[in-house]
Amino acid sequence: MLIAAIEAGGTKFACGILESAGAGSGKPSILERASIPTTTPAETLRASADFILDAAERSGRGKPDALGIGCFGPVDLRPTSPSYGSITATPKPGWGNTDIAGFFNGELELQAAFDTDVNAAAYGEYLWGAARGRRDFVYVTVGTGIGGGVFSNGLVAHGLSHPELGHVKVRREADDAYAGSCPFHRDCLEGLASGPAIAERWGAKAESLGPDHPAWELEARYLAKAVACYALVLSPELVLLGGGVGMREGLAERVSELVGEELAGYVPPLADPRRLASFVARPELGADAGLYGAAALALRGRRD
Amino acid sequence: MLIAAIEAGGTKFACGILESAGAGSGKPSILERASIPTTTPAETLRASADFILDAAERSGRGKPDALGIGCFGPVDLRPTSPSYGSITATPKPGWGNTDIAGFFNGELELQAAFDTDVNAAAYGEYLWGAARGRRDFVYVTVGTGIGGGVFSNGLVAHGLSHPELGHVKVRREADDAYAGSCPFHRDCLEGLASGPAIAERWGAKAESLGPDHPAWELEARYLAKAVACYALVLSPELVLLGGGVGMREGLAERVSELVGEELAGYVPPLADPRRLASFVARPELGADAGLYGAAALALRGRRD
Repeated sequence: MLIAAIEAGGTKFACGILESAGAGSGKPSILERASIPTTTPAETLRASADFILDAAERSGRGKPDALGIGCFGPVDLRPTSPSYGSITATPKPGWGNTDIAGFFNGELELQAAFDTDVNAAAYGEYLWGAARGRRDFVYVTVGTGIGGGVFSNGLVAHGLSHPELGHVKVRREADDAYAGSCPFHRDCLEGLASGPAIAERWGAKAESLGPDHPAWELEARYLAKAVACYALVLSPELVLLGGGVGMREGLAERVSELVGEELAGYVPPLADPRRLASFVARPELGADAGLYGAAALALRGRRD
Repeated sequence: MLIAAIEAGGTKFACGILESAGAGSGKPSILERASIPTTTPAETLRASADFILDAAERSGRGKPDALGIGCFGPVDLRPTSPSYGSITATPKPGWGNTDIAGFFNGELELQAAFDTDVNAAAYGEYLWGAARGRRDFVYVTVGTGIGGGVFSNGLVAHGLSHPELGHVKVRREADDAYAGSCPFHRDCLEGLASGPAIAERWGAKAESLGPDHPAWELEARYLAKAVACYALVLSPELVLLGGGVGMREGLAERVSELVGEELAGYVPPLADPRRLASFVARPELGADAGLYGAAALALRGRRD
């Protein structure tokens, strides 16, 4: 089947046309992809839809059979809500109350599978990446912000809206005087450990800080506190640490070690050092993770 | 159908024989119940089995058709583990490595539905109590310890073992000098807010402290921090606050208010004061909650 996949991001929309033999049949093939800058809704949505319609036609298969959209937030995910499928109160200028799913549904004459960008990425890792075979796991991405998706019993947790893993309040490290960058909570996890927080605290961008810079040990400590919290609340088998900051070389390994210290032997399976060593790991889907995630959403409910 | 229900507690085993028309048919009737002191495993398990077998015979229905056990922990819940259904490394003298499910399976010639006491209680509230119709909720009990069960998409979260909601580390209140009572983590939530922590901090048992005692505002503050954490990690629709301390008059209402302050508007549905006011609520099943919970476990997978 032909899948239209869209990762609607705050910087760019990653759009693709993929060919899949079904959710159980291995990673779909990406036939074509495009990266469209996120400017105004009118411009970006139009260009994305045009690319998808043209690429589907070029594929020789006509129109796509399914549509998946992973979207930056906050989004309305309540199926019964009049604004279901919309971006709601985003600080991003011009994008508040934009009906993303509705637009693409109309253009492609399909019913989109719509979810947050992080839930989509988690779903992709569940079907084809580092979380294959794991029914209970957490996917957390650390970059400009910190967010994530939660799988429990093989299903994405939505509940009231969706988890906000980046906004848990971890205890501060005693020698950290940085006030925090979160406009809502100041020194929640995102306020202390996101890319902008690292840059502001140390006066240099995260990617410019060498492996021996103390920023990385502090980063690992804050992330370990958050991961220990997720482990206590959810009892996941695995925590995937993605994003530009989260995928830094050696970070997942150090966070795993520190989670052991945080839990102090309390979650017995993680008291086994071998088990603990692989508890925090990196996602596997790489640069096309957004497209695979959106395609995984499109296949959700079509376990053929 | 005739259900044997056992709530295996550290102080007493609540045992009952219930009559149910199925999981969808309203609360089962308790035909007989007994409370058996938790002394040695040999004595307590024998007396519990004898009561159940005798009560089932007295019911005129012969042997029970199903068996549910909610058990104090830590317990082994991994179905493939050789010690599945056992209490593992409990500090309770004599009870370490006791095969609870195995004993009752043999005595009653049934296959027990076995889970933690808190997951059982959560399941009972889900079928017949305060969480009816809620697919995503957290049940937390505050008493001698703090523990809880998590429902996501209508299923109990197990994952690696089971959640340990009482051991999340909340930020300390600035004016609280009490060191904390948890032997594993010292000042985690349980170390700061359990019944023994209240008693040690204030020099008097929780139940003896009047409604205007400052202990209750501090208790509400710590519980609100934990509930905000659960809300961010799981996005539940509802948090049930049970247990001898948790069910204190007015506590759930005050915790609801303070959760709003903790979240600072970040989870939009909870920014609505009416929605927030009922976000933290009390369980409804009362003194027989343990028996109903164990019966709910027995009916799990028998949605007839």
